Amino acid sequence: MRFEICLAGHGGQGLVLAGKILGEAIALHSRKNVVQTQSYGPESRGGASRSEVVISDETINYPKVTRLDLLLALSQESVKKYLLNLKDDGILIVDPFGVKETPSGKYKIYSLPIMQTAKNELGKMIFGNIVALGAIAALTRIIPLEHLEQAVLNNVPQKFQADNKRALQIGFKLGETVQKGNG
Amino acid sequence: MRFEICLAGHGGQGLVLAGKILGEAIALHSRKNVVQTQSYGPESRGGASRSEVVISDETINYPKVTRLDLLLALSQESVKKYLLNLKDDGILIVDPFGVKETPSGKYKIYSLPIMQTAKNELGKMIFGNIVALGAIAALTRIIPLEHLEQAVLNNVPQKFQADNKRALQIGFKLGETVQKGNG
Repeated sequence: MRFEICLAGHGGQGLVLAGKILGEAIALHSRKNVVQTQSYGPESRGGASRSEVVISDETINYPKVTRLDLLLALSQESVKKYLLNLKDDGILIVDPFGVKETPSGKYKIYSLPIMQTAKNELGKMIFGNIVALGAIAALTRIIPLEHLEQAVLNNVPQKFQADNKRALQIGFKLGETVQKGNG
Repeated sequence: MRFEICLAGHGGQGLVLAGKILGEAIALHSRKNVVQTQSYGPESRGGASRSEVVISDETINYPKVTRLDLLLALSQESVKKYLLNLKDDGILIVDPFGVKETPSGKYKIYSLPIMQTAKNELGKMIFGNIVALGAIAALTRIIPLEHLEQAVLNNVPQKFQADNKRALQIGFKLGETVQKGNG
């Protein structure tokens, strides 16, 4: 078993933190090996950001993602850059806020209003990264929500813990809802 | 040019955060490509932690460290595990607090009381990760101190900013001092 995730969007959307939280949560509570990577290049100064998580039963000798099982794309640019790496039966989560043209393909495609939900329910788009993690937990079942919640709380300042906990739950419901709608 | 760094020690020593800060600082202020990785495996549940930063002028197709230019080892176990990957002319920084047996070799070896300095000067060993970053800046000159400082401040809660800023400066002086002693 090897499961490869890429979280892609703009800098400032908290995707590096989201990858770190996801990696820690899985590593702490399972017997899996996890490698979590962020890449910064000239493109990152243009505003792009991505974070990758590889989960495996075995030692991970090649940490670079090669065949994605899940791509979260918060910007059109990230769809363009990473969709080619997504497996045919992979999961594509796009946010219509940043992705105006949802691609088609054999993938399981979920269009989730992550940023708009963060703004409407929590007052700030900055919680979008945690909303996204909740949705990923619902759509993949790679990690129980309570394990993810613990890792979120370990990684955010105390005064934002209640908001982040709510963001995670709201994201999970969002994921659950579209999954039912899709089935 | 490719420069590979491994920060290794125990979980809870903040090495994942240190790697993230170092990677961000270099990526933001230079034209380099940076890939920053943390690996969690069964060993991480035993308390080991490591964070890697690869810096290159070119696109980084293989993000796993292969020939280390710098190894920071805060535990004896991490010396044992990663020293074989250090280049002959690489830099080894050990903290005698966790590394009782300093290895020998062709490497440039610096024994720095990182944890003890954090405890003595700042009251808490938890600032050791930032002290270590300051020392790395002094010993490698891969990044100006002010760039690193900005990244530190971007990554720590406001109420700990003054302490972390001091930790960085103290670490830088520590690195400068041993370098002169070594030359």
